[in-house]
Amino acid sequence: MNNDLEQRFRTTFGEVVRKHRLENKISQEVLGDKCQLHRTYISEIERGLKTVSLVSLFRISQALEIPAHTLIEEVENVNKPK
Amino acid sequence: MNNDLEQRFRTTFGEVVRKHRLENKISQEVLGDKCQLHRTYISEIERGLKTVSLVSLFRISQALEIPAHTLIEEVENVNKPK
Repeated sequence: MNNDLEQRFRTTFGEVVRKHRLENKISQEVLGDKCQLHRTYISEIERGLKTVSLVSLFRISQALEIPAHTLIEEVENVNKPK
Repeated sequence: MNNDLEQRFRTTFGEVVRKHRLENKISQEVLGDKCQLHRTYISEIERGLKTVSLVSLFRISQALEIPAHTLIEEVENVNKPK
């Protein structure tokens, strides 16, 4: 997997998290509190600046009440080869 | 999410990776080469000693030719509340 693709996955994951956070009508701060991650870290994740760990993925999925595999599937669907 | 649950996710993820690696009939070394991760790191992941990043998840999924969301779904199914 090349660096471009990795960056695309990071960026897309951030967009997926942001989309669901906004659907849940919660701020980055509230999401951060819910998953014991700092608000600035949530902000960095949403902007594709940080690669999250699987543990953070599961925490975020619980906080958003969406299965982790659904979040990942959305990322894969966006980046599927045409 | 408490530490026990996080450790269970780590352990289960390792078991899922190992299962698919053995189904693919490849060694930890070959899997490591395919996803540009060190063999000892693969070994630690399989034993639940390391939390992988999303980037490593996508690399491993490509190397095993299994969608990343399928790997995550298997982890979630094992840890689903009864």
